[in-house]
Amino acid sequence: MPRYKLTLEYDGTPFAGWQRQDGEPTVQGALEAAAAAFTGETVTLYGAGRTDAGVHALGQVAHVDFTRQWPVETVRNALNFHLKPNPVAVLRAEPVAADFDARFSAVKRHYRYRILNRRGAPALDRNRVWHVPQLLDVEAMQAAAQALVGRHDFTTFRAASCQAKSPVKTLDRLDVARAGDEIVIEASARSFLQHQVRSMTGTLKRVGEGAWPVGAVADALAAADRERCGPVAPPDGLYLVAVDY
Amino acid sequence: MPRYKLTLEYDGTPFAGWQRQDGEPTVQGALEAAAAAFTGETVTLYGAGRTDAGVHALGQVAHVDFTRQWPVETVRNALNFHLKPNPVAVLRAEPVAADFDARFSAVKRHYRYRILNRRGAPALDRNRVWHVPQLLDVEAMQAAAQALVGRHDFTTFRAASCQAKSPVKTLDRLDVARAGDEIVIEASARSFLQHQVRSMTGTLKRVGEGAWPVGAVADALAAADRERCGPVAPPDGLYLVAVDY
Repeated sequence: MPRYKLTLEYDGTPFAGWQRQDGEPTVQGALEAAAAAFTGETVTLYGAGRTDAGVHALGQVAHVDFTRQWPVETVRNALNFHLKPNPVAVLRAEPVAADFDARFSAVKRHYRYRILNRRGAPALDRNRVWHVPQLLDVEAMQAAAQALVGRHDFTTFRAASCQAKSPVKTLDRLDVARAGDEIVIEASARSFLQHQVRSMTGTLKRVGEGAWPVGAVADALAAADRERCGPVAPPDGLYLVAVDY
Repeated sequence: MPRYKLTLEYDGTPFAGWQRQDGEPTVQGALEAAAAAFTGETVTLYGAGRTDAGVHALGQVAHVDFTRQWPVETVRNALNFHLKPNPVAVLRAEPVAADFDARFSAVKRHYRYRILNRRGAPALDRNRVWHVPQLLDVEAMQAAAQALVGRHDFTTFRAASCQAKSPVKTLDRLDVARAGDEIVIEASARSFLQHQVRSMTGTLKRVGEGAWPVGAVADALAAADRERCGPVAPPDGLYLVAVDY
């Protein structure tokens, strides 16, 4: 069966996350319903990352098998047509080999976390950023973040419900930078534990507001203890930016 | 009476524009209601630009007089509190001299127009961009735009309902550039005619899609004839970015 790779943008706000759930609006469910309306077939979409409720994507990747070979423009346009009015857009559809797997073939995932660091609440980016009114020390956050880069046991930054076999992951990049009123955190790794980016972000925010010294993040990591994590950052500011294969 | 300068961000989507109208939600109306809830006084807010329905602001400026002197943090925080749940944020409040006028003291206004130039509709930036699926020639648009820079009779790019005394304005900047999937148009002038930026943008889009040659924009300007304007671009992509004093 012809397999297609789909690159997706979505607003996570109205969804109970990526993964299909009975009776809940999900991104996977919306895409599968659109695919069914397009081809008349019942298909399963496999995503590179199972984003949580409220988490957005600029470049989520999924694969799907259809029984018929369609032009890629037809796949993209038909899915976009049937996705309306869901805030999900198919940016690209590409034919891929039968052994391509959106989840298991991925070699790197890139996430971004946006903090709006000013007094006024977001008027234009409501549900798109984490609003932190207190001025954060970005240099301290960036310094603390570097202790997390590399291969570590990330138990401290892992949700209790995480199903990964091992808590050991290699974090390739964790950069914190200010851009005007925003603080942007860029995180890259082959794969992440559940809630890892939000857990790291919430912990770095404690450093930024001066509640934790810079070195406390390395200590929390070394403790490999979920109790040592800072408050988990909300989903609103998190974006799955891109997936590399 | 103490006068305050307010710098404002808002999402224009739910509003019938800046200017107060009976029975319609407006940005000015929302701010005046918040000011009344804060001070108990009936006040008038004067804005630098009367943005149309659906037009956004990153840095609109307004002035308002209160009978009492308040700390600027109190003005900002109290207005933001009473503005909820409207998507309007007071970014800054500053004391200004009694002769400061948000509209008449302005020496330059900066607008931005965002076009999402890709096949897929916006999932994250719905109501925030003009979605143009057909690939536009940005170089041609930029070349055509330069014919509009300078002091001209902008009758061609002026709404029929425009109340300005003269159609002659000096356009200081009109730059068109691509940033990934977006085309961003930056326009600066002391003041603009009603619908001028949207009229210029809609006309430049005709050049970008190849329907008009580059030189047709200079011809349309020289004709000083509203009939020669391209289709006016929708409000969704327009932002009042900043006002200089």
